[in-house]
Amino acid sequence: MVVYHRVTQEELYRFAYEVFRAAGASEAAAKAIAYNLTQGELHGMGSHGVSRLMPVYVERLRNGGTNPDPQIKVLQRRKSTAIVDGDGGAGAQVALFAMGVAIDIAREEGTGWVAVRNSSHFGAAFITAREALKHDMIGVATTASIPLQPPYGGRARALGTNPLCWCIPGGKQGDVIFDMATTVVAKGKLLLAIMEGKPIPEGWALDEEGRPTTDPVAADKGVMLPLGGPKGYGLAMIAEIFSSILTGAEFGPRINNLYGDTSLPQKLGHFLGAIDVAAFMPPERFRARMDELIEFLRSIPLAPGHKEILIPGELERRKAEEYSREGIPIAEDVVASHNKIAADLGVRPLQTQPPH
Amino acid sequence: MVVYHRVTQEELYRFAYEVFRAAGASEAAAKAIAYNLTQGELHGMGSHGVSRLMPVYVERLRNGGTNPDPQIKVLQRRKSTAIVDGDGGAGAQVALFAMGVAIDIAREEGTGWVAVRNSSHFGAAFITAREALKHDMIGVATTASIPLQPPYGGRARALGTNPLCWCIPGGKQGDVIFDMATTVVAKGKLLLAIMEGKPIPEGWALDEEGRPTTDPVAADKGVMLPLGGPKGYGLAMIAEIFSSILTGAEFGPRINNLYGDTSLPQKLGHFLGAIDVAAFMPPERFRARMDELIEFLRSIPLAPGHKEILIPGELERRKAEEYSREGIPIAEDVVASHNKIAADLGVRPLQTQPPH
Repeated sequence: MVVYHRVTQEELYRFAYEVFRAAGASEAAAKAIAYNLTQGELHGMGSHGVSRLMPVYVERLRNGGTNPDPQIKVLQRRKSTAIVDGDGGAGAQVALFAMGVAIDIAREEGTGWVAVRNSSHFGAAFITAREALKHDMIGVATTASIPLQPPYGGRARALGTNPLCWCIPGGKQGDVIFDMATTVVAKGKLLLAIMEGKPIPEGWALDEEGRPTTDPVAADKGVMLPLGGPKGYGLAMIAEIFSSILTGAEFGPRINNLYGDTSLPQKLGHFLGAIDVAAFMPPERFRARMDELIEFLRSIPLAPGHKEILIPGELERRKAEEYSREGIPIAEDVVASHNKIAADLGVRPLQTQPPH
Repeated sequence: MVVYHRVTQEELYRFAYEVFRAAGASEAAAKAIAYNLTQGELHGMGSHGVSRLMPVYVERLRNGGTNPDPQIKVLQRRKSTAIVDGDGGAGAQVALFAMGVAIDIAREEGTGWVAVRNSSHFGAAFITAREALKHDMIGVATTASIPLQPPYGGRARALGTNPLCWCIPGGKQGDVIFDMATTVVAKGKLLLAIMEGKPIPEGWALDEEGRPTTDPVAADKGVMLPLGGPKGYGLAMIAEIFSSILTGAEFGPRINNLYGDTSLPQKLGHFLGAIDVAAFMPPERFRARMDELIEFLRSIPLAPGHKEILIPGELERRKAEEYSREGIPIAEDVVASHNKIAADLGVRPLQTQPPH
């Protein structure tokens, strides 16, 4: 059984920031990456948090695959659009910068759309997209990622799990934060099944020969399946077109693997957008209308076996509230391995509350 | 067994145009609706073509639910955005107008985003969105529709099948036309199973009590299920927010049913976008990159049981090519019932090639 320590949000950020600084990241880079991974972990997404991503991000910074002090530039700007070159920096830093550009443009033009190239893995999409919410704007984010799913009907890896994310400002009922992978499940769920020695449901993945499998180890060598077959494939392709083709970034197998040769830049693209609600109606009216929609959805009678109607992002928000109070759980072996990385870099270990 | 007549595209358009004119539509309205429904039918989508939609569209025109000569107006324009009021016109006409506005805006601003209110059912989304392709632009379209699916975990109708559509200009390998309902399958497939007296697979729908069912008649009284559970629900909600909330249109159960009281306007909203590829890179370069992506996807080895890798929209394009050559198939009983409507309106019957 996995044993969890608890850590405060502030301490997790302190730890990640110091580790990334010690690994060579500039102050701006270390702040952006530590913020991104701490927020991922806080929302219950260890797969997009310090737990999973700190070690490989550190390795990339130390081996040269991630530029520790990128000169991120707006290459081109035409009215409601811009192209941002990430100069091989950490995706968390590049995407945060580019989202700021999208928001600035939207303030002037009603909407802002930014194509990002020369970036890298940017953590959970919603952490970038939700920046728009602070400005009464809708945030949109998509990214390419290393191939894990086939085109529908294929058996080899071609497209990433390519998430699509929209963040919508809400009223009393809260914001809508919808961030989904275009595969049936994220790869992390497969890796968890391997760790726990459990079979996976049919429909998640194919083995190397393209046969449906319930063996997570065989699935790990094969492909993840697109959500709903042709529909998930289509969504993944749209994400790839916006992130990889329209941006001038690399696509599919030409994107360097996050876990591959960590001295190589990933050459990844993202596509980010901000939509100023005020271009359409007063934000207070929009928020009141969002409340009406959400209240209506919550009023729908339940199907057998269900306990409540949730709004996209609600589960993660609850986790974040709980973890803000109680501390963020980090698996004991992760604490140990991360502290080893910290020790190598001369960084003070993560201060946790051990399980009791 | 259903017997099909064949009709030329030109004759089907002539017939639909004359029927809509005789039902009271202005010349502009009749042209837009006839074009929309003929194109739907040509692409193998009788569910979004003359076959299914002509009778109810005629009834709405005659009973006052659809404004036969709407004064469609741009209410508000702010840089890259606009609001269009459809004045209760046919969705086909209103959306075509609004997409033209989005394209005009995108030519100046790089992108154009149009929120549409006071519209009605607009046929297949791709017919509107693909207008952008003629201008080297990406087209985006979404719409609300009458409730058919529950929020995930619910058992009553709350959200429409709310399609999402993107049309991307391609090169030698053709354009990408991706138009999907956010339910597992469109309602039309359920109605087909009822007609054919066949069971439906578990997972398509719930009965009135919220229980999974394979009986299409029970399913017809219940709800269609969202694609992939929470993910399809999230996508449907995003479509509803853009189409119904941001536009100032009605949402969910406040949208009048296409087949309900046909003297009432539907009060439906859409959200349309155009993205000028040239704002990001020369269109020729974009088209060449699209070819590279598509050629790569086609090169992926097949999974057992599959015959080819398809690109979104490819099946429909093949149908349209075949039907352009061979004539469009229309079921014999549809020909008869449609000719009865035409006779009532004093319109010359549909000239078809009977089956041989």
